[in-house]
Amino acid sequence: MREIILIKLGELVLKGLNRKSFEASLVRNIRHRISRFGNFDIRVSQSTITISPKGDEDLDEVAEKIGKIFGIAAFSRACVAEKKMESILSACGEYLSGDLNRVKTFKVESKRSDKSFPLKSPEISAEVGAYIMENFPHLTVDVHNPDLVVMVEVRDFGAYLHGSSLPGAGGIPVGTGGKAALLISGGIDSPVAGWCMAKRGVELVPVHFASPPYTSERAEQKVVDLLTKVSDYSGRMILRVVPFAHIQEEIMAKCPEELFTIIMRRFMMRISERIAVDNGCEALITGESLGQVASQTMRAIACTEAAVDMPVFRPLIGMDKTEIIAISRKIDTFEISIQPFEDCCTVFTPKHPRTKPNLHFVEQAEQKLDTDALIEECVSQVKLVKIGYYHSPA
Amino acid sequence: MREIILIKLGELVLKGLNRKSFEASLVRNIRHRISRFGNFDIRVSQSTITISPKGDEDLDEVAEKIGKIFGIAAFSRACVAEKKMESILSACGEYLSGDLNRVKTFKVESKRSDKSFPLKSPEISAEVGAYIMENFPHLTVDVHNPDLVVMVEVRDFGAYLHGSSLPGAGGIPVGTGGKAALLISGGIDSPVAGWCMAKRGVELVPVHFASPPYTSERAEQKVVDLLTKVSDYSGRMILRVVPFAHIQEEIMAKCPEELFTIIMRRFMMRISERIAVDNGCEALITGESLGQVASQTMRAIACTEAAVDMPVFRPLIGMDKTEIIAISRKIDTFEISIQPFEDCCTVFTPKHPRTKPNLHFVEQAEQKLDTDALIEECVSQVKLVKIGYYHSPA
Repeated sequence: MREIILIKLGELVLKGLNRKSFEASLVRNIRHRISRFGNFDIRVSQSTITISPKGDEDLDEVAEKIGKIFGIAAFSRACVAEKKMESILSACGEYLSGDLNRVKTFKVESKRSDKSFPLKSPEISAEVGAYIMENFPHLTVDVHNPDLVVMVEVRDFGAYLHGSSLPGAGGIPVGTGGKAALLISGGIDSPVAGWCMAKRGVELVPVHFASPPYTSERAEQKVVDLLTKVSDYSGRMILRVVPFAHIQEEIMAKCPEELFTIIMRRFMMRISERIAVDNGCEALITGESLGQVASQTMRAIACTEAAVDMPVFRPLIGMDKTEIIAISRKIDTFEISIQPFEDCCTVFTPKHPRTKPNLHFVEQAEQKLDTDALIEECVSQVKLVKIGYYHSPA
Repeated sequence: MREIILIKLGELVLKGLNRKSFEASLVRNIRHRISRFGNFDIRVSQSTITISPKGDEDLDEVAEKIGKIFGIAAFSRACVAEKKMESILSACGEYLSGDLNRVKTFKVESKRSDKSFPLKSPEISAEVGAYIMENFPHLTVDVHNPDLVVMVEVRDFGAYLHGSSLPGAGGIPVGTGGKAALLISGGIDSPVAGWCMAKRGVELVPVHFASPPYTSERAEQKVVDLLTKVSDYSGRMILRVVPFAHIQEEIMAKCPEELFTIIMRRFMMRISERIAVDNGCEALITGESLGQVASQTMRAIACTEAAVDMPVFRPLIGMDKTEIIAISRKIDTFEISIQPFEDCCTVFTPKHPRTKPNLHFVEQAEQKLDTDALIEECVSQVKLVKIGYYHSPA
């Protein structure tokens, strides 16, 4: 039996966005994400995206990927039958038997967009309902609150049958919300922040600060692993790894110890903004959550933000740690984040960081540093790492 | 039987914050919030805040309020017994009978912080367990995964008995995270944004833009009603109502129509920043969610933010509308938000707002306006409305 995936565009929220470019982005994202599983025909027609395998491609893995593509509220796996009632009935008995055996009540809904089909929608529903009652005698009809809704759609290219729809990842298609640089450490928060913004359609340009020889290659691999999980949702991206040890050594040597963290973070913001501008980004994304640690007081955040002009998106700013952890478990980054490799933020950490830094003193302290030269040096040594790139079958 | 409320401070997350000021803020917030329900003795001792009615005050309403105070992960209602085993046992049978009749399995945990009490913790648990088994014969003990944990705490001022704890509102105490101005409309998003930041300890200074005669008094009352719901969690606050019609008329008359929304929002940000500075705030809070409407594209947000220096916190920036609505239902603002009174944002709305405004053109268009004078005029006419103020009993 041929199986396909149906994505109803009516379930997408499109307020204030251009529907056409939204659909085009979504189809492009779907194509990218599933191409490595085989050859698929993907088409938009009658407010539905239909994904049909060209050969005998299995849809289990494809459905799992589709469930992680932003811009899809819900989708269905359906079987394709010939546009004849007997084919529809036998497909129903075969394809939906698992679902029908699991439930106690059902109803049938039909849609006939091919008006040349001889039966009208209520007639199709009645015949399918009668067939189900006869072949699954444990079932009763419940039109108000059924355990299962059997959908029959008679469309241009065949009759489609499916049961309950599967939940999609929500959000809007990545690419329709612009591009932003994500500051990513190896911790729990920043991958979650990236995921949240990708959900709102943002294409991510991740920037990671590494401090070899103080940090290990495994710390960098951890970031690659985290972003690979995020890319399941956001699509592929190119990580920028910035060698940061020299700047940290300079700050340590020339600035007051209690201002180390804040000055370091200001450099991270400046370098990220520089990379952002070079790559067509219009915002920065951080995993900051107000009050979580000393560098995340309102005063410290204001001090950090003052180093850049671009807007800073902080999707976790109003979340508790428990809420952030819940998302990190859901997107499968939590277990990676808690691996114990030191990152650049934990190297050189002062014992008593200033929780309410004064911007004037911070700027004064920074005058001891050749800011522009240090940033140039860093940016010129940035390493690129591809995340989520796969070769599609020839 | 005397009943009290116990809040375990060990359940609070205090990373990077000063524990003492955290506790002091929490106790002050509790005192403010429950004083109108009677006279209570509130004390911190042995890592626990104990709330004891001085008379026969009912704890139902108090417990409901406590459940909405940020900084409390969980709390318990407990009964107070004399520090004698027979009193403890009879209190257990009486006070916990409802809970014990509802469940099938239980275990007893005891804590003896008053070491002069003759029985040790395991002995207390054994006696209470035996008493329960005898008087509630349907119950069996399950030490690993019981339906109910009966807690017996022998403390300085008595023996406390309680069952399962109740969920608190989480977050950190309001006031420990600084102060910020909340731009609040009558919509679904901004009250949720305020709630999220109050959860992270921020004291809110709400600012609302009203456009009489284009908007009605009922539109303003709607904002007061919304903030009253938020104040159940955030504590009392003073709303600033800014008369905004004149600025809107000026923008309408002198600037290109397609830039109306963005220029209007830039004025809102400037006026809010001015009010923020005057009131000791260090950030602005908006309900913006990326891509939701035309004024919430990345480019438009950058353009709006460029009008101010303060950091802008946008806790909803990475949320879908469905997620925002879920919170608004939880905090009971949803039904108020969907009341159909026009607010200042829907007055004069252009048919085709620019979704990717160019900052240079926006600044050029604004030169037709006497920005400073318009802001002065607005700020001088701000009206104050008290939210969540109650007279405590004499």
